[in-house]
Amino acid sequence: MSEAPAVEPTVFESWSQRVVLGTGAARTALAGEIERLSASRVLLLATEQELPLARELAASLPVVATFTGVRPHVPVEVAEAARALARSNDADLLLSVGGGSTTGTAKAVALSDRLPILAVPTTYAGSEATPVWGLTEGGRKVNGADPVVLPRAVVYDPQLTVTLPEAMTVASGLNAVAHCVDSLWAPQANAVSTALAVEGLRSLAQALPTLVSDGGDLTARRQALEGTYLAAVAFAAAGSGMHHKICHVLGGAYNLEHAAMHAVVLPHVLAFNTPSAPEEASRVVSALASAGFGGHGSAVGSLLALYDVLGAPRSLGALGLSETDVDEAARLCLEKIPPSNPRPVGVTDLRALLRRAQAGQTPTDPPAAT
Amino acid sequence: MSEAPAVEPTVFESWSQRVVLGTGAARTALAGEIERLSASRVLLLATEQELPLARELAASLPVVATFTGVRPHVPVEVAEAARALARSNDADLLLSVGGGSTTGTAKAVALSDRLPILAVPTTYAGSEATPVWGLTEGGRKVNGADPVVLPRAVVYDPQLTVTLPEAMTVASGLNAVAHCVDSLWAPQANAVSTALAVEGLRSLAQALPTLVSDGGDLTARRQALEGTYLAAVAFAAAGSGMHHKICHVLGGAYNLEHAAMHAVVLPHVLAFNTPSAPEEASRVVSALASAGFGGHGSAVGSLLALYDVLGAPRSLGALGLSETDVDEAARLCLEKIPPSNPRPVGVTDLRALLRRAQAGQTPTDPPAAT
Repeated sequence: MSEAPAVEPTVFESWSQRVVLGTGAARTALAGEIERLSASRVLLLATEQELPLARELAASLPVVATFTGVRPHVPVEVAEAARALARSNDADLLLSVGGGSTTGTAKAVALSDRLPILAVPTTYAGSEATPVWGLTEGGRKVNGADPVVLPRAVVYDPQLTVTLPEAMTVASGLNAVAHCVDSLWAPQANAVSTALAVEGLRSLAQALPTLVSDGGDLTARRQALEGTYLAAVAFAAAGSGMHHKICHVLGGAYNLEHAAMHAVVLPHVLAFNTPSAPEEASRVVSALASAGFGGHGSAVGSLLALYDVLGAPRSLGALGLSETDVDEAARLCLEKIPPSNPRPVGVTDLRALLRRAQAGQTPTDPPAAT
Repeated sequence: MSEAPAVEPTVFESWSQRVVLGTGAARTALAGEIERLSASRVLLLATEQELPLARELAASLPVVATFTGVRPHVPVEVAEAARALARSNDADLLLSVGGGSTTGTAKAVALSDRLPILAVPTTYAGSEATPVWGLTEGGRKVNGADPVVLPRAVVYDPQLTVTLPEAMTVASGLNAVAHCVDSLWAPQANAVSTALAVEGLRSLAQALPTLVSDGGDLTARRQALEGTYLAAVAFAAAGSGMHHKICHVLGGAYNLEHAAMHAVVLPHVLAFNTPSAPEEASRVVSALASAGFGGHGSAVGSLLALYDVLGAPRSLGALGLSETDVDEAARLCLEKIPPSNPRPVGVTDLRALLRRAQAGQTPTDPPAAT
């Protein structure tokens, strides 16, 4: 057998998870999932705002305590309070009903106390499909990945998302789109993550425009949740690329609204990487074309055509990043960019990119990807 | 919140598995994977033919016994012999080096003895990525699915496949293609299985033609293994559709060569289902088009263009099915076709389909999928 140079192999890991998806499933499937997990003492987690929904879904479930102190970015003191409540009530299952912050709070408890999570998502955050956890202490965000925090079961019910406001549908949906696009060139990108990313992008780009005109369209709501799941599994497998590293820094340092920030930054990163990532860009072009956004020449042109239809957020300034923050932000981001990013990134590049994103300018349009 | 009719939800399950893919990985990664699985007493499984390769790969590994009694379809007496060898040597890991029959033998041991499997595939069978096991007793094949038989780790090394003969490359590769296509309409088809199936089909259709002209092309060998994995995970998630049910019956009753049989049957099932599965057919068309097989009008036309380039097997008669077997085979298949198949299937349909497949005729070409 001929010798070939051994290169670092690609590693892909999948984990056990059961996903149930269907209209009405949050009302019909939870008791069975709790039984499958052999649980009988449920800690329910929800925001104050989503508490009525959570209570309604959990009405006939064995809930021993309810935690509503959820806050964005999971401050350590919030995590500690939730852990204390789980322990004092001898909970054996965490039932999270909500978006990324609620799932994230459940993950913080799972991380320390090894309790299984049953997640019922109400947004397109996708946290329910990743082993990634995050905590904030003193304004500093710490992230990690541990399969123990991956929810053991997820129940997606399109009906729970029909009341998601349009702006949130768009921002949260584009956060999921960002998972897909960034997965294409993230450090551990592989055949599986690319397959899921491309299909997730297609699903989201098909569903979101429908939801802007009719938020109650259950078929599109279902497709958006499917896209969310595909996007999140792709992201979990591929890891954080340039886009997620920038957003992680910005989110931590300037406390910008998570989903909208992702929506604003993505086209700028796509425009920047396209000249050095022709294959990835062409996958974006064809996925968006199959969702009705064809004929725009470049990947970023296709993405912006989707943004136009959605009335997507376009300015970090509008989210609270000031023009004078840009230089510091560029320096903070620089050291976090993965060395494997398809295009080398200097501080000047980041400054230019963030300046345009801050001001809400159109990303520099690279030559058409072919 | 408006009431909507609750329909049976879609359920998707994933399982823990670690996949390492790289040229040379079978020579560099096995010791580390065995350590990760905390194993120290390895039962090596291989066919007599692949024993020299298996011994070479395992030279510095803690092998306590070697089983070479592998036979196709895993006869029960073969499984019992392998189990006895594992027990008498107190093995704590099954290392299978080989194709579907070898992995299948390891699965039979895992099923009864709950030992973890480390799989090193040498074909495109894909068994390493599914929880499906099979045993044959007195000519009758019994199948089942149990996560305990899913290999805990898989090491794909393109270098091990460069010596796979052309006919086997084609047949085994088209067996993987069949996993992709049949997954699109199988009973548990879902967003994830479709994503993986479409990408797997694209990868295989790109790689296989290259391998027919140059079996030593390591890039194409790698892509074929990626396609194999995507195909198998899609199949594991979606379950057996019409194609796999027919092949299961034919394989059991007439002992036809597994991979070649799959290759022959697939275009006939695709042609039959296309009129009732326009969306699935259009996914086949676009996946094959992106791999260079565009402009053939229909899904089956595109697939046959690939078959032409590959010189693929086209006749069940050549594999040993006689013309007089067709009527009985059609009856045997009928009761196995999933009720969810997109097009209703009668015995007349099966008789016509099998008659054409037996005689090596071109499948009836349905109207173009659009």
